[in-house]
Amino acid sequence: MTNPTTITALPGQTILDIERLVDAPVDAVYRAHVDPALMAQWVGPRGYEMEVTRYEPVDGGAYEFVHTDPEGQKFEFRGSFHSFLLNERVIRTFEFLGVPGHVSLESVDFEDVGGKTLIKAHSVFQSVEDRDGMIASGMEHGVVEGYERLDELLAA
Amino acid sequence: MTNPTTITALPGQTILDIERLVDAPVDAVYRAHVDPALMAQWVGPRGYEMEVTRYEPVDGGAYEFVHTDPEGQKFEFRGSFHSFLLNERVIRTFEFLGVPGHVSLESVDFEDVGGKTLIKAHSVFQSVEDRDGMIASGMEHGVVEGYERLDELLAA
Repeated sequence: MTNPTTITALPGQTILDIERLVDAPVDAVYRAHVDPALMAQWVGPRGYEMEVTRYEPVDGGAYEFVHTDPEGQKFEFRGSFHSFLLNERVIRTFEFLGVPGHVSLESVDFEDVGGKTLIKAHSVFQSVEDRDGMIASGMEHGVVEGYERLDELLAA
Repeated sequence: MTNPTTITALPGQTILDIERLVDAPVDAVYRAHVDPALMAQWVGPRGYEMEVTRYEPVDGGAYEFVHTDPEGQKFEFRGSFHSFLLNERVIRTFEFLGVPGHVSLESVDFEDVGGKTLIKAHSVFQSVEDRDGMIASGMEHGVVEGYERLDELLAA
């Protein structure tokens, strides 16, 4: 059984919360979130290739990556790393370059729950419309399937 | 007469909007927002010394600065630059290290209004409590007085 992914987006708010329990210890889950070679193996839906083209995992660094879907269509993303707290929290910005100028601020917390890890991803968008547009884009599918791929990566 | 500063914070939202007309052209106002030697002359309330200790004005760069009040108390701030759009927009994160872990995402737009510049600063906080705490901290005084100092700098 796959652990459920909980996505919360209260009406009229700019906030999007995602929670997911992963059956692996915090240090492994944290590493899978900050090591670009590992990220490329699970972030996003199945069948997508992920190429990380820039990655500066330090406070104030930047990142860029490209997803390529099975039909060859490319989706570019970029952001800034605000801060890293080893095995605890990452704070970063996020922008899909297909809709440039719409940026979100995401903090990802990693909580130990009896040897497993509760991932808490808390995002704020620049407007309610931006957040609702992200949800309408089919983000949930990519998030849920990404966490399934993360389970498989951590089990391997 | 000083131009008014409009601060909008709707109840129960994470958003804070600030608008201020400045009687100077966009390129000068933009430069005063991104050149650290100029920023140090106007950002924050009167009587504060500002030292910029890190400043990487590129997409994905970082910044750090310290304000020292007339009694010698120090206030440290830091953030990441998400993007720069010359004479149009800056997007960055912002954190007061006196209350670490509370980060906001700010976009500052510069609009030409008949040769003057309308500054539109749009911030989203990670929670309504964070935003309301920022307002309760007396931010408005620093913002209003900072823009008065900006007027004086641009007139000089």
